[in-house]
Amino acid sequence: MNLNDIHSPKDIKNLDLSQLKELSAQLRDSLLTKLSRHGGHIGPNLGVVELTVALHRVFDAPKDKLVFDVSHQSYVHKMLTGRIEAFTVPAHYDDVTGYTCPRESEYDLFEIGHTSTSVSLATGLAKARDLQGGNENVIAIIGDGSLSGGEAFEGLDFGAELGSNFIVVVNDNDMSIAENHGGLYENLRQLRETDGKCETNYFRSLGYDYRFVPYGNDIESLIAALTEVKGIDHPIVVHVATQKGKGYAPAEEHREQFHYGAPFDIPTGNPLNISQRANYADIFADYMLDRMKKDNTVVTITAGTPSVIGFTPDRRIEAGRQFVDVGIAEEQAVAMLSGLAKGGAKPVFGVASTFIQRAYDQISQDLCINSNPGVITIFYGSVFGMNDMTHLGFFDISLLSNIPNLVYLAPTCKEEYIAMLGWAIDQNEHPVVVRVPDMAVIETNREYPTDYSDLNKNVVERKGSRIAIIGVGSFLPLASQATDILATKGIEATLINPRFLSGLDTDLLTSLLDDHETVITLEDGIIDGGYGQKVASFYGNTNMKVLNRGLRKKFLDRYNANEIVTECHLTPELIAADAIATLG
Amino acid sequence: MNLNDIHSPKDIKNLDLSQLKELSAQLRDSLLTKLSRHGGHIGPNLGVVELTVALHRVFDAPKDKLVFDVSHQSYVHKMLTGRIEAFTVPAHYDDVTGYTCPRESEYDLFEIGHTSTSVSLATGLAKARDLQGGNENVIAIIGDGSLSGGEAFEGLDFGAELGSNFIVVVNDNDMSIAENHGGLYENLRQLRETDGKCETNYFRSLGYDYRFVPYGNDIESLIAALTEVKGIDHPIVVHVATQKGKGYAPAEEHREQFHYGAPFDIPTGNPLNISQRANYADIFADYMLDRMKKDNTVVTITAGTPSVIGFTPDRRIEAGRQFVDVGIAEEQAVAMLSGLAKGGAKPVFGVASTFIQRAYDQISQDLCINSNPGVITIFYGSVFGMNDMTHLGFFDISLLSNIPNLVYLAPTCKEEYIAMLGWAIDQNEHPVVVRVPDMAVIETNREYPTDYSDLNKNVVERKGSRIAIIGVGSFLPLASQATDILATKGIEATLINPRFLSGLDTDLLTSLLDDHETVITLEDGIIDGGYGQKVASFYGNTNMKVLNRGLRKKFLDRYNANEIVTECHLTPELIAADAIATLG
Repeated sequence: MNLNDIHSPKDIKNLDLSQLKELSAQLRDSLLTKLSRHGGHIGPNLGVVELTVALHRVFDAPKDKLVFDVSHQSYVHKMLTGRIEAFTVPAHYDDVTGYTCPRESEYDLFEIGHTSTSVSLATGLAKARDLQGGNENVIAIIGDGSLSGGEAFEGLDFGAELGSNFIVVVNDNDMSIAENHGGLYENLRQLRETDGKCETNYFRSLGYDYRFVPYGNDIESLIAALTEVKGIDHPIVVHVATQKGKGYAPAEEHREQFHYGAPFDIPTGNPLNISQRANYADIFADYMLDRMKKDNTVVTITAGTPSVIGFTPDRRIEAGRQFVDVGIAEEQAVAMLSGLAKGGAKPVFGVASTFIQRAYDQISQDLCINSNPGVITIFYGSVFGMNDMTHLGFFDISLLSNIPNLVYLAPTCKEEYIAMLGWAIDQNEHPVVVRVPDMAVIETNREYPTDYSDLNKNVVERKGSRIAIIGVGSFLPLASQATDILATKGIEATLINPRFLSGLDTDLLTSLLDDHETVITLEDGIIDGGYGQKVASFYGNTNMKVLNRGLRKKFLDRYNANEIVTECHLTPELIAADAIATLG
Repeated sequence: MNLNDIHSPKDIKNLDLSQLKELSAQLRDSLLTKLSRHGGHIGPNLGVVELTVALHRVFDAPKDKLVFDVSHQSYVHKMLTGRIEAFTVPAHYDDVTGYTCPRESEYDLFEIGHTSTSVSLATGLAKARDLQGGNENVIAIIGDGSLSGGEAFEGLDFGAELGSNFIVVVNDNDMSIAENHGGLYENLRQLRETDGKCETNYFRSLGYDYRFVPYGNDIESLIAALTEVKGIDHPIVVHVATQKGKGYAPAEEHREQFHYGAPFDIPTGNPLNISQRANYADIFADYMLDRMKKDNTVVTITAGTPSVIGFTPDRRIEAGRQFVDVGIAEEQAVAMLSGLAKGGAKPVFGVASTFIQRAYDQISQDLCINSNPGVITIFYGSVFGMNDMTHLGFFDISLLSNIPNLVYLAPTCKEEYIAMLGWAIDQNEHPVVVRVPDMAVIETNREYPTDYSDLNKNVVERKGSRIAIIGVGSFLPLASQATDILATKGIEATLINPRFLSGLDTDLLTSLLDDHETVITLEDGIIDGGYGQKVASFYGNTNMKVLNRGLRKKFLDRYNANEIVTECHLTPELIAADAIATLG
């Protein structure tokens, strides 16, 4: 059949088994072609071709409701629900996002991108159905990796009490992004190895009925299993063993590498473009490996994203027991960080800005109320970071700079990052967060202090008058360029690196009143709740003009970062122009 | 023996069984006496008298490390670790906090107050021990109610992988604050009923070794079980069945009521002072019951704290299936809220300010990125709320007002609260948070609009000039009193109720520039990241003076709220004086 004839799941309802197998082969082929040219989540989608076909064959979406966890594995779902051209016609590749998207289709129920949310969201759909007397099936599809997240447990635990139709399909490919971590995975292995029959069964312990499907890439088995549970009147887990990367040998063999990738060469699996640029993941990992070798109490923690922080498989082996992956469990990572620090270790948790959002209370309560000297370092905290709506990296300053006791450092270049990270690890007074000045690595070859215990002390890079520009972290070079432009217009502006986001250098800010009219703050984060607004508040009862520049309080999706910063007047020219416009 | 001779656990190491039983009776007696006069967590502590005695008899704290979940059940632990007078001598009752407190004693490892954190914190201690070659026992003591929290699952899941001494004592009294919710509790019941032998075992499924202690209030059993696991070389769960309120009949019988209580009469169990004051819990619950009766798609959600939101056992019965308690699982509550709204229901999640901190990412991702019209209403959001360090209620404005798409309403009195709550439930455009103007209920007998869809429109209560005072939520009366004082000094100030915390009324604020010199903002929350700083930022490039008044970015403990507000210049006199001082 012609893939492009599939406009909705109706078009596969009458296919016989051999046609469904052929369909799966074609889908897989198109996926490979698109992803090899375009990049995306390769392994996860190849692994669920048959499962997705079976789901749409058996269930009747959109009346029946499918919720994909993370939803990075929803490409085949999109192909079957009216968006086939986005996978078969290069000009339409970007018609779809990389995650489920209600804006595209009624078959997609939620914008999702963080992990472990599907079961909880689905409990809401199920409860709403029950209140209104509906009879549709509600199905959550969650990978084994996502089960390590506390929210998934909360969803499963509550879902069992629904007492009505609630189907949780566990897509078990025995992988997270990297290998799984957590005691649960031993149970999943036992279940896989005993055809689902072993007595100890995590899902049954939470009150679920349970079915095991050993051949999760066999269409016939899947259809039989899903048909059996369709219309069921109680909560059930359908545990499906699939193979990540199925159908493409390099992805089957190199499962971590092919979780998500840039364009690649199909015959070999090699990336088309090898990035040789320096990046902070490598810088961080090499620095930590060195520290860990010198001191066996130094620990690096990740919550399921080792490569984000540079810990490739080789580096993980090198670090040995001083590298800890807690699974996709950021709350555990932060609380453990606090316990490690209390116990005399020197722990560092490396995490992307978007994911630290999942541990606010643990940072506030477990770590900061206790003032335990754990260190967190934030990657991808930038408008130039990941640009899809569920992975934005510009909320962490607002989130973290308002927690008492937390020292939030914003280095401006590689050398300053290493200096601050080093101090953070060595000191034992404060919980410290160090924001990686993502994305481009800037080296200044300057020396930076090794001691940051004199909290909130800013650095004046250039002493001028009339206008002061405060450039936070990665935006210091931007501030510097604006200062250069002002100089061409005869204004020697003051350039400041604040270094600390968690408090103000009140002495310095007060001293600026003597000979400055205007202060402009620049931050790679939303203005609301951020650093600049604290400066505006400080100067509220004075004649100092304050311009706060940063991002707007909006969820952006697949945006062009350069366009956004221009709209926000975060270019040297516009900063200079806005500053001049304030002068009396 | 004389209780006051207990200065440390050493003093109980050589007691024989009958002496330990007598000790337990004396401890229980002193507890009852103190709590009947002083109030506190009654049932939880009565239930763990024997368990705590056994822990300190068998283990060797402080070398062996005990981490109590929530730590509201740590009174007996304090009695045995050098703080007995705080429980036997009325003048010393307040020498100790209601939770573990490192500032008091080295036997207390963490300041704790939120739920489900003990296992994760303990994994950090255990890992630190292993890295440094230590051999102490690490023991987390967690109640069955706390197991519903995702962080507890993450801790258990990771702890199983430690491969070294890690003891989790599950104190199972078959109660949360109210009854338990979640499929897990059926498994706990099966385990209790089969002497721990049933095949389906949640703890074993996560990889733990497992022991069951059926008589958790029998010292001899407890000592035997704990002695068996002392020095163990792998992770194990010791599942102990205890009776909440043990030893005091009213507490055994009325387990929800005696979870936490004010002073009471020992013979009857009746509270000494019945509060007749109106409170928002009753107002909310009565309003929701009425709404739920009229529309079977209206749902009230709690995460394990039904009485905080007024849903007493009677009201819960009345609400039937339209009242949902997800257990102590705030992430589930918020994600479910989003799913319910998507599915066509009208859900409202009532939660204390301190606990909404646990669901930031779910509010941001699950709810707000999806713009699903779920409603959250925040209780105890005030400096006048709970005043212990781990239950502070003044961070929610900073936390939530900076999330895109979220409409955060701050009503100023009972009538406005009901009006806003009603609109929030009826509309279907936005996720809405309504901040209860806690603590005292003010009724104005005024009518308020039923439509708040014109976002960010403030209300000018009094039109004046020179000075404008913006009073957020419960601080509007304060602002009004300050305005009265200014009037006596010949200044007719403008009084504004902003109503919306998530955005500014830019038209109004701009219009104030015509005839005002100063704007003062008052909020019952920390200034950093809050509402007032947005106003300061807005006026940054103008001549308007802005004073932001609110709380400092500090964790306070057992503070006097009136002293704090005075220090923060949040009194009518000081607000008026500060305003006048800004005038040219």
